[in-house]
Amino acid sequence: MSETAPRPTLEAVAARAGVSRATVSRVVNGGDGVREPLAARVRRAVDELGYVPNQAARSLVTKRHDAVAVVIAEPETRVFADPFFARQLRGISKELTAHDTQLVLLLTEGREDHARVGRYLAGGHVDGALVFSLHLDDPLPALIQRAGVPTVFGGRPGWSDGMREAAYVDSDNRGGARTAVRHLAGLGRRRIAHICGPLDQTSAADRLEGYRDVMDGGDPRLIAESDFTPAGGERALGELLDRVPDLDAVFAANDLTASGALRVLRARGLRVPEDIAVVGFDDMLPLAEQTDPPLTTVRQDIEGMGRLMARLLLRGPGTAPPGPTGLAGGTGGTGRSLVLPTELIRRASA
Amino acid sequence: MSETAPRPTLEAVAARAGVSRATVSRVVNGGDGVREPLAARVRRAVDELGYVPNQAARSLVTKRHDAVAVVIAEPETRVFADPFFARQLRGISKELTAHDTQLVLLLTEGREDHARVGRYLAGGHVDGALVFSLHLDDPLPALIQRAGVPTVFGGRPGWSDGMREAAYVDSDNRGGARTAVRHLAGLGRRRIAHICGPLDQTSAADRLEGYRDVMDGGDPRLIAESDFTPAGGERALGELLDRVPDLDAVFAANDLTASGALRVLRARGLRVPEDIAVVGFDDMLPLAEQTDPPLTTVRQDIEGMGRLMARLLLRGPGTAPPGPTGLAGGTGGTGRSLVLPTELIRRASA
Repeated sequence: MSETAPRPTLEAVAARAGVSRATVSRVVNGGDGVREPLAARVRRAVDELGYVPNQAARSLVTKRHDAVAVVIAEPETRVFADPFFARQLRGISKELTAHDTQLVLLLTEGREDHARVGRYLAGGHVDGALVFSLHLDDPLPALIQRAGVPTVFGGRPGWSDGMREAAYVDSDNRGGARTAVRHLAGLGRRRIAHICGPLDQTSAADRLEGYRDVMDGGDPRLIAESDFTPAGGERALGELLDRVPDLDAVFAANDLTASGALRVLRARGLRVPEDIAVVGFDDMLPLAEQTDPPLTTVRQDIEGMGRLMARLLLRGPGTAPPGPTGLAGGTGGTGRSLVLPTELIRRASA
Repeated sequence: MSETAPRPTLEAVAARAGVSRATVSRVVNGGDGVREPLAARVRRAVDELGYVPNQAARSLVTKRHDAVAVVIAEPETRVFADPFFARQLRGISKELTAHDTQLVLLLTEGREDHARVGRYLAGGHVDGALVFSLHLDDPLPALIQRAGVPTVFGGRPGWSDGMREAAYVDSDNRGGARTAVRHLAGLGRRRIAHICGPLDQTSAADRLEGYRDVMDGGDPRLIAESDFTPAGGERALGELLDRVPDLDAVFAANDLTASGALRVLRARGLRVPEDIAVVGFDDMLPLAEQTDPPLTTVRQDIEGMGRLMARLLLRGPGTAPPGPTGLAGGTGGTGRSLVLPTELIRRASA
């Protein structure tokens, strides 16, 4: 919803037609009990104002489908390759099952399939949607808004004005990154590099901001963009070492990236943490414990995020639920979003 | 559909009402153009015969939803832990996307959620269903039949009389197992053990039959049931070695199980293949190439199975499509099912 051109409300329709909200609601919902001249007047007011009834919100109240869609804005190959998604789905699945609600995972081959996802969401098959891993310029948020489906995002959707009111659950990515880089600085490291995630995602952009907060903006030669994968981490660390051979620490945007970086360091005969200290992000188990050496990392409660997304959707806005972890508190003006705290987990790599 | 009590057909309704098939179809589909006394006669015939219109078949023809459900009869944790499912979904996803059809994956926490899956399928949200990893006594097939959704199974569903007509895509599990065990026998191995999969699944039961075909029924001490997981393979091989310390070969029901068995052999200081030769099933890459030693195994075309399931569903019965691999040919009397050939891949473990 854009703030400059607010969508006409049920109230506006009622005022225009000179009837009660209840009467408008009955007509819009196709229910009985409204006689014809009156109903026609309501329909005319609906047309004149361009009122769009929120189909999905209606079915969420009536629990018509008992189903919630999950959309991960990545190709299905990545959904199954990155344990982050399995972990978040686990939290969602547990919560939805506890409410006897079916988890409907909409898989795609790529962004060109998102219009089809939008059509499915608009088709009245689900009571709401949980959407994560959004990228900049993805058409999904606009399609979802048009579909009128209640939605909670995993990760701050960002960028678009229309998204300012969106409900989301996120981790404190910027704060977590600051903690990681301060830890490395506290170990006496001075040439601390950062391997970013894809900067068209807010999680990656926020972690970069946290790194820059501590590094006084950061030397561009110490920053390499990557893609949250182990292979991407290998490539990025190779570049960084070629550019700055004497770097002494790396903060990687996630644990998969860090695991790739560790492989490169081992291959080049560099000792961790003696020569180069490494910190990751996620605390993705068992990976973070099984790397060589085990990984110091910033823990975020991925499964908990999934659980809270589902809870926020099922209970509707304004019900910031206390999670099993403490909450850092809402962020937006609407009080509909949650940002979870992060925590540094010290192992051997830094 | 039971063969003794056939479901009343559209033709039967037309004959009873004394109208054409097209008229029955129009009434049943809620369409216009049939005047009231005639429509009432059709509705009466529908009631008298107990005719159940196949909602889902209708929407498959009209392409109303452009969506196909995938149901994997395993808890979501296993769906994400076993690469078999990701591989099969990859084939399904590619084929559905090529037909601009949305893949709707219905996840569950366990079998107790299958009634809810049945409700979603019956709710008119999808044009058909692809169902795999069925277990004996699972209520899903009956729920799906009741929902009237066109369905193709991954793996022969087996057991229930009502399933005799079901369309499915399977691998030649029994033939593949025979090839594996004959290969071990050809290497001069005589005490060949078998680690089964869960025997409430036809794939596991058929592989055991193939083993028994070659082993003259098989010595029960050489057979251990397991669960298609690495941990299960470790346990099963431990049991087998305790029972038959001088066994000289193992045929594992899948590659994950074989990888667990290889770990136990290494831990006990037994050489592969010198002391004990090992053959798996699947050719799950990269796993099968990365085990120590690389795994000799029976390849099945998992992604191809997924692709063919989707193709069979989208094109409807009677259109056995030529796949990218050669087909072993239909199996059932209906010609709606496909059994794909398997192939022995020789690496270092046997």
